[in-house]
Amino acid sequence: MIDKLCIIGIGLIGGSLARALRDAGTVREIIGYGRSVGNLQQAVELGVIDRAEVSLPDAVRGAGMIVLAVPVGNMADILNTLAPVLPDNAVVTDVGSVKGSVIAAARAALGARFTHFVAGHPIAGTEQSGVAASLPDLFQRRRVILTPEAETDSDALARVRAMWEAAGAQVAMLTAVDHDRILAVSSHLPHMLAYCLMDMVVRHDDYRAILENSGGGFSDTTRIAASDPVMWRDICLANRDALLDALRQYHADLGAFVEAVEKGDAKWLCETFTRAKHARDSVNRKL
Amino acid sequence: MIDKLCIIGIGLIGGSLARALRDAGTVREIIGYGRSVGNLQQAVELGVIDRAEVSLPDAVRGAGMIVLAVPVGNMADILNTLAPVLPDNAVVTDVGSVKGSVIAAARAALGARFTHFVAGHPIAGTEQSGVAASLPDLFQRRRVILTPEAETDSDALARVRAMWEAAGAQVAMLTAVDHDRILAVSSHLPHMLAYCLMDMVVRHDDYRAILENSGGGFSDTTRIAASDPVMWRDICLANRDALLDALRQYHADLGAFVEAVEKGDAKWLCETFTRAKHARDSVNRKL
Repeated sequence: MIDKLCIIGIGLIGGSLARALRDAGTVREIIGYGRSVGNLQQAVELGVIDRAEVSLPDAVRGAGMIVLAVPVGNMADILNTLAPVLPDNAVVTDVGSVKGSVIAAARAALGARFTHFVAGHPIAGTEQSGVAASLPDLFQRRRVILTPEAETDSDALARVRAMWEAAGAQVAMLTAVDHDRILAVSSHLPHMLAYCLMDMVVRHDDYRAILENSGGGFSDTTRIAASDPVMWRDICLANRDALLDALRQYHADLGAFVEAVEKGDAKWLCETFTRAKHARDSVNRKL
Repeated sequence: MIDKLCIIGIGLIGGSLARALRDAGTVREIIGYGRSVGNLQQAVELGVIDRAEVSLPDAVRGAGMIVLAVPVGNMADILNTLAPVLPDNAVVTDVGSVKGSVIAAARAALGARFTHFVAGHPIAGTEQSGVAASLPDLFQRRRVILTPEAETDSDALARVRAMWEAAGAQVAMLTAVDHDRILAVSSHLPHMLAYCLMDMVVRHDDYRAILENSGGGFSDTTRIAASDPVMWRDICLANRDALLDALRQYHADLGAFVEAVEKGDAKWLCETFTRAKHARDSVNRKL
């Protein structure tokens, strides 16, 4: 049971976590803090949070669990503001899509209290943003990755794990380095590919005709191009090296596709499509 | 009303067309022909077709409408077999994803009867294949593009249009050149991107971890990588030039993404993501 939960950033993820924990009956009071007064008001009106605060020190006072659900690029500022007012016994966790940079910011900002910071990343979301898009079942049977460091307090880790399990998630552990390398391929790269395709189309002479004559494939492939640009700019900057490895690999691989189409290499195309299809079929069987 | 409809290739598209027309009550008898006896038997058992024939001349005898629903690479062979046995007054149409190459094959094979060939392409489908995946409502409110040539008989065109409208589709007209250029971007390119991503992942050292730590974005972006490899090999070969234009443009655009991430160009990334997001949001509003 969390007596007082403070969520910094009541958007899709922060709002969904609040709804899930309230539905689970595992939290007594939820305080929200964020930059947009309009969004905070909406969060109160929707009953997602009990109360909004317009100063971070007021928001975290007496909180036992503090969740940072802001874009990765804002984490360092929030952590620096939080450090001098962090309540005794509070655990701090985050939901950022990049872990190495957030852990570095937390270690720098929190000093000795870094032991009570547990880095986390729920692999859940939609292309929508804001509290109005939040869903109480967003984390049901979805994976949440926690990336504890050597000095992470085991009780703090257990409390964060219990929170996510109460929200319906399945918790897994990775090192931050593994997380950032793996997510660069499984999440960050697909977002770049979707943004790039949508941006190519919007600048195309046939823009309207392409949209009019598109079907489910185009629609699904570009869905995540509607994601929040600031959030994804921050992810690109924070996970630069791992994302570059993934992007460069994909760029080279796509070059091989171009070459095979140029040459009319039917055998290569069919073999490559078949290998990809078998792999994708196995994903379908798993889902 | 179609008295006798012959569908060559009872897969996802051919089977769905049969189901839709039967549900609409606009066809008296549906004859199926294809290469896989097992698939034809299943089509009869499922009630998708009334009867299967194992020779093409037998299948088309007396048919007023003949639909070619085979991979693009098989169209020329089918058209050459069909030409000498084409019933008087029969209209022939196809559902291929590339129109220029199919029209050229039809013109070469059918001679004077090319006037009764109407090239078509329903923008509908799933990543599934075979008659078991066919759906009676697959074409409901979906676009079907017809690409008549100068010599196309207007009555033949009207009959093909009426068939698709009976199946629930909205019919639009394009030139074959426009179709192939536009679909190269709206459909063929997204399939290449999905195959390329899935193939990169299956060859990756972190293959299992990437799949375990993937979410809806990865799943949606790669869905169409489960599409039929032979069908897509044929499309690559048949629409080579237009697909190369699209692939090369995308490859260059992705190169700009790599460069922006290398440089940490926050402004470029945010502007590009924002432009793409606005375009994708407008697609959502349309859907």
